[in-house]
Amino acid sequence: MVGFGKSDVGVKDQSTATKNTLSPDYLINLDHGDPTLFEPYWRKLGDKCTVVIRGNESMSYFADPSSFCWFLEPRLSDAIQSLHRVVGNAAVEDRYIVVGTGSSQLYQAALYALTSPGGAEPVNVVCAAPYYSTYKEATEYLSSGLYKWEGDAYTFDKEGAYIELITSPNNPDGTIREAVVNRGDGKLIYDLAYYWPQYTPITSQTDYDVTLFTFSKCTGHAGSRIGWALVKDKEVAQKMIKFMEINSIGVSKESQLRAAKILGVISEDCQNFRAVGSENFFEYAQRLMSERWEKLRDAVKNNPSLSLPKYPQEFCNFTGKYTEPHPGFAWLKYKESVDLRDLLRSQKIITRGGERFGADANHVRISMLSPEDVFNLFLARLSSLE
Amino acid sequence: MVGFGKSDVGVKDQSTATKNTLSPDYLINLDHGDPTLFEPYWRKLGDKCTVVIRGNESMSYFADPSSFCWFLEPRLSDAIQSLHRVVGNAAVEDRYIVVGTGSSQLYQAALYALTSPGGAEPVNVVCAAPYYSTYKEATEYLSSGLYKWEGDAYTFDKEGAYIELITSPNNPDGTIREAVVNRGDGKLIYDLAYYWPQYTPITSQTDYDVTLFTFSKCTGHAGSRIGWALVKDKEVAQKMIKFMEINSIGVSKESQLRAAKILGVISEDCQNFRAVGSENFFEYAQRLMSERWEKLRDAVKNNPSLSLPKYPQEFCNFTGKYTEPHPGFAWLKYKESVDLRDLLRSQKIITRGGERFGADANHVRISMLSPEDVFNLFLARLSSLE
Repeated sequence: MVGFGKSDVGVKDQSTATKNTLSPDYLINLDHGDPTLFEPYWRKLGDKCTVVIRGNESMSYFADPSSFCWFLEPRLSDAIQSLHRVVGNAAVEDRYIVVGTGSSQLYQAALYALTSPGGAEPVNVVCAAPYYSTYKEATEYLSSGLYKWEGDAYTFDKEGAYIELITSPNNPDGTIREAVVNRGDGKLIYDLAYYWPQYTPITSQTDYDVTLFTFSKCTGHAGSRIGWALVKDKEVAQKMIKFMEINSIGVSKESQLRAAKILGVISEDCQNFRAVGSENFFEYAQRLMSERWEKLRDAVKNNPSLSLPKYPQEFCNFTGKYTEPHPGFAWLKYKESVDLRDLLRSQKIITRGGERFGADANHVRISMLSPEDVFNLFLARLSSLE
Repeated sequence: MVGFGKSDVGVKDQSTATKNTLSPDYLINLDHGDPTLFEPYWRKLGDKCTVVIRGNESMSYFADPSSFCWFLEPRLSDAIQSLHRVVGNAAVEDRYIVVGTGSSQLYQAALYALTSPGGAEPVNVVCAAPYYSTYKEATEYLSSGLYKWEGDAYTFDKEGAYIELITSPNNPDGTIREAVVNRGDGKLIYDLAYYWPQYTPITSQTDYDVTLFTFSKCTGHAGSRIGWALVKDKEVAQKMIKFMEINSIGVSKESQLRAAKILGVISEDCQNFRAVGSENFFEYAQRLMSERWEKLRDAVKNNPSLSLPKYPQEFCNFTGKYTEPHPGFAWLKYKESVDLRDLLRSQKIITRGGERFGADANHVRISMLSPEDVFNLFLARLSSLE
């Protein structure tokens, strides 16, 4: 989660970067994945996604007191189910939906739900490296006696209960993941933040015990802090809801109403007849990601020291075409044993170093989701790297 | 935090109760403090507090990357400072403002900020009984090695570092509180959720190291999940911000923008010249609370077994008058040793029992913040109690 603080120079200009021409001194921050690249799409839609909330609306703690998840707005629940049906990326029938303040909070809710107080030892939490750096931090920061971070799932050999996280497509490297420990006493949390058509072909309708999604990466609305979990087991869902009660007494109603509106518009646009040449959100976003990846690969191929992962083309059930993954992050490798993060930092490019993900320092994770002009300046600097 | 779940019968009708006549079988839930009573005020203001958010606004994680608290909307920061200046309840000069998903999350952020990993023992957390029941739960639920719940501050006699919570006016009993342990090695967290003119006279501008406030109790907008901390020490504020990063990567921008709007309208209304007979929010809310407390005291005085705390009149710097406290909760006592919660439950009134607050079962906490018709039905049933 490093990279959000003020100490990261360059962050300060990121959100307003598109309004000005970037100076040669501009420090490019691609450490975090602030998904501002989709903003022009939503701007173009005009009032179609505007929400209006009056002063006396949504004042209660309760969104729907008769509902299992009492703080979940029914309109958001409907929009989430409808979107998953349209995209075909996750089964929603007979699932409990738990809304969270982003999927980070839901990850912690899931840890709470899948463990119990009073155990002899905290439950081990593992994830195949390279893993999302924030998992480690979110598992460790409160020194919980319920669970503890045990690192790379590939090298995990301790006995007893464990929790394995599976991020697919993976953050940082964009690969499609399956569980790797595969023992009977394990519980699995699937983080599918990037399992949307703009990032990867939708090859199957997933159907796991606990699955996390986030509004941030689906549509680019990171500021709303909305995530959701699809949960099979009632008791696990109940404990996640209990966590949300204690941690923050539910989730912002305003954000939920806005997410419901925006997800609803996407679903509708994907289903309706459209004028020739118009794009629905996923078509737009897929085109954008594809263009960026093409440009990035062009820049990298001229430098024999650098390489990027290669991804197989697969048939995408959503688009009905063979498509290639275009991950939200580029996992860039330097062929020799150099600190690639430091090297790029000397070119005024801030990235997140491989060690943070349980990998080597010759790797960095680079956000592909910056505003257009920031991305282009990044390419120019990368191309001039010796 | 019990009382939010679906298992609490009666909750389901609470929010819609005002739309129908309540049946004699209606189960009144006054366990939690859902502050829906102020809704008519905001309705009457019409569009004055309406917020309009377009689809492409506030998409970034960052509200103001150049700011110390990068996820805090500058408009909310301004509105908070302005309101505290108008009301005179807390010093804001040279304070760091940290916004949270309600003050519950900020309480946990403060525990994280005031402790350090690697200590021999978790830091003891205490609060004078009767204490807000949720503190216990929020301190214990993750079995943290950083801090642990030690209960009543009055009986606390362990050596070493400690954290004392001071809730003033107190939840559940409405009293004005000061720290009670008073040792050099203690750190203090002040929860001033109810230190607003409608609940208690504003007798001084508070000036503590860490102070928590919440939008929920100030204006009644509990659904927005907005709280804020005023923090003197930079490092403590920084650690609280770090907690917010890991716990939920900041706070809903939509809720912050709405809170900014509503708090701004209150400040303005309190300062501007007004037509005779019109009320600003605090005047309205104070009148409402005063009327409810008068009715409640009338109902209680006819039953020799029941009693309520008495509060001294004090000069309120905000209204310029001597006023009496009108707490958000009534702390009702039965003179004999009966389980008052059970007794009221038999009359179809759900309250929170004294044991939950570290007190006796002949006490209950009753929300004074329900919709009008629910409150009136409660009074009728209480009056008929033998």
